[in-house]
Amino acid sequence: MLKYLNQSEAINVDLELFNEYKFSVDQLMELAGLSCAHAIAKCFPADRFGRVLVCCGPGNNGGDGLVCARHLALMGYLPVLYYPKPTPKPLYENLAHQCKRMEIESISECPSVALAAECYDLIVDALFGFSFKPPVRADFVPVVELLQQTKLPIASVDIPSGWDVEAGKLNECDMEPTLLISLTAPKLCAKHFKGKHHFLGGRFVPPALQRKYELNLPTYPGNEMCLEL
Amino acid sequence: MLKYLNQSEAINVDLELFNEYKFSVDQLMELAGLSCAHAIAKCFPADRFGRVLVCCGPGNNGGDGLVCARHLALMGYLPVLYYPKPTPKPLYENLAHQCKRMEIESISECPSVALAAECYDLIVDALFGFSFKPPVRADFVPVVELLQQTKLPIASVDIPSGWDVEAGKLNECDMEPTLLISLTAPKLCAKHFKGKHHFLGGRFVPPALQRKYELNLPTYPGNEMCLEL
Repeated sequence: MLKYLNQSEAINVDLELFNEYKFSVDQLMELAGLSCAHAIAKCFPADRFGRVLVCCGPGNNGGDGLVCARHLALMGYLPVLYYPKPTPKPLYENLAHQCKRMEIESISECPSVALAAECYDLIVDALFGFSFKPPVRADFVPVVELLQQTKLPIASVDIPSGWDVEAGKLNECDMEPTLLISLTAPKLCAKHFKGKHHFLGGRFVPPALQRKYELNLPTYPGNEMCLEL
Repeated sequence: MLKYLNQSEAINVDLELFNEYKFSVDQLMELAGLSCAHAIAKCFPADRFGRVLVCCGPGNNGGDGLVCARHLALMGYLPVLYYPKPTPKPLYENLAHQCKRMEIESISECPSVALAAECYDLIVDALFGFSFKPPVRADFVPVVELLQQTKLPIASVDIPSGWDVEAGKLNECDMEPTLLISLTAPKLCAKHFKGKHHFLGGRFVPPALQRKYELNLPTYPGNEMCLEL
């Protein structure tokens, strides 16, 4: 049976990928963000959901979002970045620079629910990942509220932002994404996901690591970078 | 019309991707190697071409080969590496380590034509790329001869090894791959390619760079990482 990871397992799998298997963050973030873009393309075709607001947080989840935005642009979407707290590390600065040079627009103020409804067809939630511990920092309160209140479909990268990594929603008002893309393996909170599409992405887990954590991942079909669970 | 790059254009496009667009080698090598694995999967399905000898050279072309081998393994192939001159740089050491930890076998001696015919269904040529200048170094003479003499199908990464990047074959005996995967944009030598399948991979070229070099790349369909030219 497919394993749902608790928070410390998720952290350890990640650490092993970097420390034991010697993957670089650049590599895995590229594959993770790419698989998110592919899952989005399967659920929300560019001709009907072309205008995408990509909300990026300060950590790896936000980095996945920056990569995802770039691949969405390459696939004909018109992503717009909302990245309120750019991370002052070379990897993140480069990812943001790549988006800029890809002619991806950026907004510095979080749009209201009404403005978002007018300007976008879809929101990508790449705010917080499996290391998140509440409460949400002040900088991110407006965008978390937007995600809670919007009627637009939301695609969440790995964890619906604001949810507890294991327990799921903490408050009745917490967001409910339409698409959840679990990366590497689903986390426990995904058991509480009631949205329409649950995808698995991040097709890079070495077989020995899958065995060690008894992940029992399903087989990705053909050359697909993601699959619907 | 699709542009075929000369050697200095190929070098400059590459330099701009790193220096102007701030991509890391890790990122682009991951996407390039992945697109090679996808092109191979389209032309040589795993059920009939599962045993793949991946021959890796000492530079970026060899790095693409190491990434390609890893993704082939993830897609159910049984790649075997022949990597006679491992590059003593962290990126390459890590890519080789990832293959090892993915349980990808490695051979230290170049197989004879007869042994290769017995053990493998396909050879991936990731020896030399667009920076190659003849002659072939002594370490690589046996594997270049294998590629010239084998009857197995060959998939060449970016440049058929031993060919001149612009003029194509230099000697009548030079190899003729069945599949050529041009990365970023085809190089001039690809005009002389007479094999069955010519693919384009490396779906990461920013529109502004495409315009600057008038690449006129075809549109990749949907979420495909490669396309047949």
